[in-house]
Amino acid sequence: MLVMMQAHATEEEIRAVCRKIEELGYRAHPIPGATRTAIGITGNAGPVDSSALEALAGVAECIAVSKPYKLVGREVKEEDTAVDLGDGVCIGGVELAIIAGPCAIESREQAFAIAAAVRAAGARLFRGGAYKPRTSPYSFQGLGEKGLEILAAVRAKFGLKIVTEAIDNESLEQVEQYADVIQIGARNMQNFSLLKRAGRSSKPVLLKRGLSATLDEFLMAAEYILAEGNYNVILCERGVRTFADHTRNTLDLSVIPAVKRLSHLPILVDPSHGTGRREKVLPLSRAAIAVGADGLLVEVHHQPDQALSDGYQSILPAHFEQLMDEVRQIAAVLHRSVPAPEARTPAVKTR
Amino acid sequence: MLVMMQAHATEEEIRAVCRKIEELGYRAHPIPGATRTAIGITGNAGPVDSSALEALAGVAECIAVSKPYKLVGREVKEEDTAVDLGDGVCIGGVELAIIAGPCAIESREQAFAIAAAVRAAGARLFRGGAYKPRTSPYSFQGLGEKGLEILAAVRAKFGLKIVTEAIDNESLEQVEQYADVIQIGARNMQNFSLLKRAGRSSKPVLLKRGLSATLDEFLMAAEYILAEGNYNVILCERGVRTFADHTRNTLDLSVIPAVKRLSHLPILVDPSHGTGRREKVLPLSRAAIAVGADGLLVEVHHQPDQALSDGYQSILPAHFEQLMDEVRQIAAVLHRSVPAPEARTPAVKTR
Amino acid sequence: MLVMMQAHATEEEIRAVCRKIEELGYRAHPIPGATRTAIGITGNAGPVDSSALEALAGVAECIAVSKPYKLVGREVKEEDTAVDLGDGVCIGGVELAIIAGPCAIESREQAFAIAAAVRAAGARLFRGGAYKPRTSPYSFQGLGEKGLEILAAVRAKFGLKIVTEAIDNESLEQVEQYADVIQIGARNMQNFSLLKRAGRSSKPVLLKRGLSATLDEFLMAAEYILAEGNYNVILCERGVRTFADHTRNTLDLSVIPAVKRLSHLPILVDPSHGTGRREKVLPLSRAAIAVGADGLLVEVHHQPDQALSDGYQSILPAHFEQLMDEVRQIAAVLHRSVPAPEARTPAVKTR
Amino acid sequence: MLVMMQAHATEEEIRAVCRKIEELGYRAHPIPGATRTAIGITGNAGPVDSSALEALAGVAECIAVSKPYKLVGREVKEEDTAVDLGDGVCIGGVELAIIAGPCAIESREQAFAIAAAVRAAGARLFRGGAYKPRTSPYSFQGLGEKGLEILAAVRAKFGLKIVTEAIDNESLEQVEQYADVIQIGARNMQNFSLLKRAGRSSKPVLLKRGLSATLDEFLMAAEYILAEGNYNVILCERGVRTFADHTRNTLDLSVIPAVKRLSHLPILVDPSHGTGRREKVLPLSRAAIAVGADGLLVEVHHQPDQALSDGYQSILPAHFEQLMDEVRQIAAVLHRSVPAPEARTPAVKTR
Repeated sequence: MLVMMQAHATEEEIRAVCRKIEELGYRAHPIPGATRTAIGITGNAGPVDSSALEALAGVAECIAVSKPYKLVGREVKEEDTAVDLGDGVCIGGVELAIIAGPCAIESREQAFAIAAAVRAAGARLFRGGAYKPRTSPYSFQGLGEKGLEILAAVRAKFGLKIVTEAIDNESLEQVEQYADVIQIGARNMQNFSLLKRAGRSSKPVLLKRGLSATLDEFLMAAEYILAEGNYNVILCERGVRTFADHTRNTLDLSVIPAVKRLSHLPILVDPSHGTGRREKVLPLSRAAIAVGADGLLVEVHHQPDQALSDGYQSILPAHFEQLMDEVRQIAAVLHRSVPAPEARTPAVKTR
Repeated sequence: MLVMMQAHATEEEIRAVCRKIEELGYRAHPIPGATRTAIGITGNAGPVDSSALEALAGVAECIAVSKPYKLVGREVKEEDTAVDLGDGVCIGGVELAIIAGPCAIESREQAFAIAAAVRAAGARLFRGGAYKPRTSPYSFQGLGEKGLEILAAVRAKFGLKIVTEAIDNESLEQVEQYADVIQIGARNMQNFSLLKRAGRSSKPVLLKRGLSATLDEFLMAAEYILAEGNYNVILCERGVRTFADHTRNTLDLSVIPAVKRLSHLPILVDPSHGTGRREKVLPLSRAAIAVGADGLLVEVHHQPDQALSDGYQSILPAHFEQLMDEVRQIAAVLHRSVPAPEARTPAVKTR
Repeated sequence: MLVMMQAHATEEEIRAVCRKIEELGYRAHPIPGATRTAIGITGNAGPVDSSALEALAGVAECIAVSKPYKLVGREVKEEDTAVDLGDGVCIGGVELAIIAGPCAIESREQAFAIAAAVRAAGARLFRGGAYKPRTSPYSFQGLGEKGLEILAAVRAKFGLKIVTEAIDNESLEQVEQYADVIQIGARNMQNFSLLKRAGRSSKPVLLKRGLSATLDEFLMAAEYILAEGNYNVILCERGVRTFADHTRNTLDLSVIPAVKRLSHLPILVDPSHGTGRREKVLPLSRAAIAVGADGLLVEVHHQPDQALSDGYQSILPAHFEQLMDEVRQIAAVLHRSVPAPEARTPAVKTR
Repeated sequence: MLVMMQAHATEEEIRAVCRKIEELGYRAHPIPGATRTAIGITGNAGPVDSSALEALAGVAECIAVSKPYKLVGREVKEEDTAVDLGDGVCIGGVELAIIAGPCAIESREQAFAIAAAVRAAGARLFRGGAYKPRTSPYSFQGLGEKGLEILAAVRAKFGLKIVTEAIDNESLEQVEQYADVIQIGARNMQNFSLLKRAGRSSKPVLLKRGLSATLDEFLMAAEYILAEGNYNVILCERGVRTFADHTRNTLDLSVIPAVKRLSHLPILVDPSHGTGRREKVLPLSRAAIAVGADGLLVEVHHQPDQALSDGYQSILPAHFEQLMDEVRQIAAVLHRSVPAPEARTPAVKTR
């Protein structure tokens, strides 16, 4: 059930409707739109009797929600959601969000070297794992809080917003203290306990699609986060598992327009995990922007052959510069933009 | 690295080798076999220098492990692992383990009605979820600890061993106090934080294959549990996600002989989730036993149309009796057995 | 549309209804059942006006067909179809059909050696390709007509029924002159031109499921053959393509009960292509029979390491004997049978 | 085996080497390159003794081919192949090939209406099926030769090159008389008999990727055509079958750079079949060009709701104009072009 307020409804009227919803034993989710506010109702086992709500001041109408997801759907919010990270950095706006950095934070030197390079090329957001979910218990599992401290230092020095992964409730406690965006990885897409915890965080959440998640499951996973009150969710396609063996995963770019049709949430593409092959990152990045994604999540490493994880899918800083350059041109065709490279860095010229 | 002890090596010699391994900064996993003990070494980043170990008393040889998984592999333990639950109930022995019960515990009445029926048909283990991972945040999420108390009452009254799912570290704390076997579901197969926590539990763990997990990933997930010291792990095939749409998932029975070849761990089959269709549970149960599985995990509900979850894949008690009867005959062909139905229940006669 | 005749309808009445249907511009398919004959109508673009037919003598009722396939469905024929090959060999009857032989016919010596062995173990049908569809144009493509002549000699000498593949209309012309059953391979499952040609043959057709065929597509492919007037169609599951990499294909045994539910046609399982791994043929054969298949298609080679194709999935004659022995026991549980090994061959004793 | 001729080798020297290869019992495939000619050798069961060839005049070196495919690989021909169709229309050149038209030719009026529209928008190639492979035997199967005559009339009137499908050897005989490019559909990708026949045609062949074809299988299918002497092969990605259900197939754009890496053949993308949803054709067309495809195959219908097949994935002429406009801008970023819309049509302005 959705309560659509009138365009001129006052804050007090909205609050009154929310109070009434809570009195009825449900949960109210006021979601401001461009012209009017919608109030999503969750917590109901069956249909909600709308008569008690329709009578309240400022209510335009009560409408049933036809999809299994409520808060992530276009029904509750027609306009695109843009997640504002401050300092002019926004995910889901006209400017594309390009998040770049190493798979894992390995050392301060490594992080700084890569941060300097991606910043120079125009990136405004930095990625890097401090907690790494690894297939083998014997693989490098990340630096933990030490990695988070390095990320904080990267933010301080380079002015980059930090995106980093939480792999359980414990690491999320840490990550939310350091990061600008909390990443939840593909393997945890249906770790509902973690989703709920992320839903109670004040930080935006970047949610990656699971390796075999349908579109509905993907949106329902996001719904878990919104249902707890955190509406700043960013989706990310990172490839699904199929029989095809020329890439590590099969990047499903058709999910971008499919998400855009159903949901107001922004969606990025991760061409690094999505292909698992360094030489395919650039063409698939162009394609991701051309299909309408709101940005990219790209693995960059200055010494990929020495990377502690995923080196074979990381690109060099010089290639990242080229990527930014080509993506910038594609973005222009869609009337979107990518930040310019920094003029002040004379060393920045590759090709 | 694996240290194979001599057949006549003493307990003290084994302890001395373990001490030496720990002194070298690694972790030792002594795994007794039918004729001799193997000691797995984990925690090493690169190859271990075996000379310091080969010189110790009782050591037969040091051998490199060729697979990414160490402790779950046949290299460390040639004979099949049987997980003993006490009272003559064992998973991985000659007698097949048939675990039956509802998807979710809904009430004491429901649980008792189903428990009585499956017990009468010969089941020695009872399944039922108190914590349910659900695709939608608005679906029934289980009774929580109240459900666990009902399960304990089922054990007390019917003498059934209890298998129930933990969905995060918090629920695992509860589950391990009530259950005989802790289940980790398909969606959590690569929730490495949960796997590690389960590895520190004293209770056996039933690990279900993820929807798109390769055999290697499945075994590596089990390795996470063993690497923490819990060697009582039971695997379970429950269907994988494919294009095929005549069943909810595609049950991959070929994984049973594949696991048996590589690993000493027992493996069960869940034909209920594996097909998602009630009428396919019986034929696929026969097939699962015929292919060599160590048992079944079957959803049974006395009122499937009123079930709070997964009713369409639950079978009626009468069908379960027939299933037990047919499976018993198939088992005999493979020189295995299924417990007989209880003689004392005169009502037990279906066909 | 289906015209159900009355139980006591005469041959003449049935012919009269068929004539009427043809007069209306459609095609009539009289399909005799256990108690009465059904007449399928194809060739209609939209719904057929039943009034002209319902008035005819001997007509019980006209019923609309709810499925996209008509002639393969249970609606037109409730009882199972058994394809009688003569000499007491039947596919779809109580006795299971075990079809064994090499992937490709390589020479008279090879074919005779294998035929003698599989005949001794109880097989009544022999498989072997004379025309081979190969992924590479540079691989061995089969002996062609010379291979068919060898197959005819095998039939003459060993009394085995011959199953061999046609790969196009030209080879089908040849195959139907030599074979007892024309096989259409997985890659040709939607070669509709070939299906139509097979539908005009007087020989039964064994149709293998395509690597990514849904159940509906599989049944519709069979419908192509029946629609041309050839009702002797045998289906065969041989594995589908998924992400799983521990077998060459993923054998989807759940399709057996799914086909049985919807269609009256018999269905076999090919565990050799279905797994692509020799050591998995035996367990999956047991499972196939346990799930309810009407028989098996198994690759046997006396010198698998020298086979010109698919040697790694062929089993030795001794393993085939063991397979027959185990399958015989599983079959008994389902009240079905497998021919006994030949008593006259004193060499036949393995385990 | 590949014989690389010297840069200055004469025609006569090349012919002499080919003669020698044929004398040795193999088949010679001279393939001219930008700087020198390579001669592929096929028909050899094992390695070819190169000494007899290396001694010939004009031979630079003999090199072993490391891939299972020979003639389609970059090893034999480094530069991209461009298939010249005459009148300045080329597939694989700087100008992208945009092939547009209805799924099936339904009537002269329909074909002409659509042809006029796509020509006005800039298309130089027209698609439309006269022979349709349909899942159901009861669906519209195409107009056959009458459809081909309509296509010929379209070419005559609008100057569009014609691309149409052959579904068996018989229809190929017809198609090659009318079409400029013979299409082989996804379901026939491994119809090796048809591939061989197409390899003996003088017309270029457009080969679509099978629904579950790996990259190697796709290239090997093309190799079948080249091995028969027809080197004018155009590949086409049209979506693969996966678990994802928000599109009819999953368009695998990563295969474009993967093909480009291994093969010199041009590759197009079919976003209509690749998504099966009208509203996704435009964004995926942009992405296909951005990723580096050599063109598109797009279904356009002026009355999609009345189309006899695939109407739900056909776009309207006005949308096609928009598509051409956006694709033109993306192409420019990759230094490629798309023909301009026709100036003489004043109605052509949409957005």
